[in-house]
Amino acid sequence: MLLLNRSDIEKCYSLKDCIAAVADAFKYFSAGKVDVPLRTQILKQNGKDTFLCMPAFCEDYDAACVKVLNMFPENINQGLPSINAQVLNIDTKTGVVNAILDGNYVTQLRTGSASGVALKYLAKKNCRKGALIGTGGQAATQLEAMLIVRNLDEVAVSDLDFERAQKFAAKMQEQLAQYHTKITAVKTGNEAVKDADVIITVTPSTKPVYDAQFIKKGATICGVGAYQPKMEETPAELVAKANKIYFDSKDAVLAESGDIIIPLNKGMVANTSFTGEIGQVVSGDLIGRENDDEIIFFETVGIAAQDLMATKSIYDKAVKQKVGTQVNM
Amino acid sequence: MLLLNRSDIEKCYSLKDCIAAVADAFKYFSAGKVDVPLRTQILKQNGKDTFLCMPAFCEDYDAACVKVLNMFPENINQGLPSINAQVLNIDTKTGVVNAILDGNYVTQLRTGSASGVALKYLAKKNCRKGALIGTGGQAATQLEAMLIVRNLDEVAVSDLDFERAQKFAAKMQEQLAQYHTKITAVKTGNEAVKDADVIITVTPSTKPVYDAQFIKKGATICGVGAYQPKMEETPAELVAKANKIYFDSKDAVLAESGDIIIPLNKGMVANTSFTGEIGQVVSGDLIGRENDDEIIFFETVGIAAQDLMATKSIYDKAVKQKVGTQVNM
Repeated sequence: MLLLNRSDIEKCYSLKDCIAAVADAFKYFSAGKVDVPLRTQILKQNGKDTFLCMPAFCEDYDAACVKVLNMFPENINQGLPSINAQVLNIDTKTGVVNAILDGNYVTQLRTGSASGVALKYLAKKNCRKGALIGTGGQAATQLEAMLIVRNLDEVAVSDLDFERAQKFAAKMQEQLAQYHTKITAVKTGNEAVKDADVIITVTPSTKPVYDAQFIKKGATICGVGAYQPKMEETPAELVAKANKIYFDSKDAVLAESGDIIIPLNKGMVANTSFTGEIGQVVSGDLIGRENDDEIIFFETVGIAAQDLMATKSIYDKAVKQKVGTQVNM
Repeated sequence: MLLLNRSDIEKCYSLKDCIAAVADAFKYFSAGKVDVPLRTQILKQNGKDTFLCMPAFCEDYDAACVKVLNMFPENINQGLPSINAQVLNIDTKTGVVNAILDGNYVTQLRTGSASGVALKYLAKKNCRKGALIGTGGQAATQLEAMLIVRNLDEVAVSDLDFERAQKFAAKMQEQLAQYHTKITAVKTGNEAVKDADVIITVTPSTKPVYDAQFIKKGATICGVGAYQPKMEETPAELVAKANKIYFDSKDAVLAESGDIIIPLNKGMVANTSFTGEIGQVVSGDLIGRENDDEIIFFETVGIAAQDLMATKSIYDKAVKQKVGTQVNM
């Protein structure tokens, strides 16, 4: 069995690689070619800690994996990550578990890549300003994905905690120096999104993190944080006024994301307002942006297909480049 | 993360330890204290290869695990095991995956332990002869479990392939020398079960592997192999004539095991013929054997609670004895 921790993966694999893998993931998923049984979920008696188990298989892609992801929100009080995950990669010919990968890092890569794919296919060609709201564990790959798919002069970063936003911006300015983009912390979500061409929100907020009026024509917005029905980081007015709305998985978003469920329940959008899945745009079955004035909204809750294709492509690169630790298991 | 391969587990953990853990597993399971979501199952297009994912959690036992088990029956043609499994042990306080264990060996230990628990609680105190039918991958721990819970003079071993039975008997005679029991290969299932006090069948047979008339009064029989509705290693006549019938999980056996489903469908037994679950006997909530004449039948298909308690107890012993390899994951 091959062990691939974060530093192993960083040695052989980039977020750009993962954006390509996740584009495949969305394409195969929307074509109905990924087997994803309903994930199992066990809730502890405290009603907060959750054990999740997410298997996935794609015969055509020759990929099988299981992600084990446990969400323990109160870990933060002990200075521990609230999400702990590992991914097992499985040989589809023999059923042998041939690798275990740092699931937290895979999750960060594939979640950032979802926005990367959406912005690559949906954003205007010429973008100048990016906005990122939320600077938690998933923020770094979101920011880098934005810079990979579009040349931006600046990205404005905001967070409820301004000091955290400042620290994050400074750290990212250094880590992502290669992209030559100015990364600045700003005090409010509205300040961040004002004049922005591409926007990503990645917060656990239960109320909108900016006002719809500040979104300019031609903007593309990715809602990443609202993975539960009560979570709402996107203003319902923005969802209502968007010219096109895409999802990673329509079923999953309609079942899980408050960003869409809340405006639906308020009658501010209808089922017919939804354009389709990003995987259909990747495959060419569905049209994406048609002009530079459309406001386009993409909502992602994350699907197992992303883990599947990301894991498979990481494993293949690691084997090819002889990265990781082989153990006798 | 702690890696525990087979040789690590053998260093710190015995089948006797596992029998104690599995007795707990059955007790907690029958008391409704183990969270076991329906396992996920993905079938490949060939209709044979199956990916299984089995999470389990017991708050009262402070244990959480996921077993990933893939059944690829045609692996045998390439000289590979048809079952490949790994178990992840999870810290219930933080959700961190703190160990990965050789799931094939855990499966062997916990499956052997099911019969160990059943025979410990249900077999006559004084037994002389054992019988084992089937000498595949799960047979060794079945045989040893029998020897741990009862002092036997001899065990007769049979298999469709007599040569295989001979090789197995010779190997086991050496490996289990400490029990001072004569282990002999015999040519037929009937020869094996004749005069036997304790009997274990562990085959994938779709027709009975012995005739009911050869089972003597007072015998205790464990049916281990029939985990699918079409599998039937136990003669329906034996199920019909047994004085008591116990299961690991009533729901699981009635859903999966041909040993019980087939006689039920034939009307040879009724739902009222079933005494209960072995976990209720372990807890003292249900009576077990009442005299030395009863024929008692125990059917097990295997439940995730066994993996859970086995894994937890292996992990605890390995940590205490500083066994295994710590890796940075």
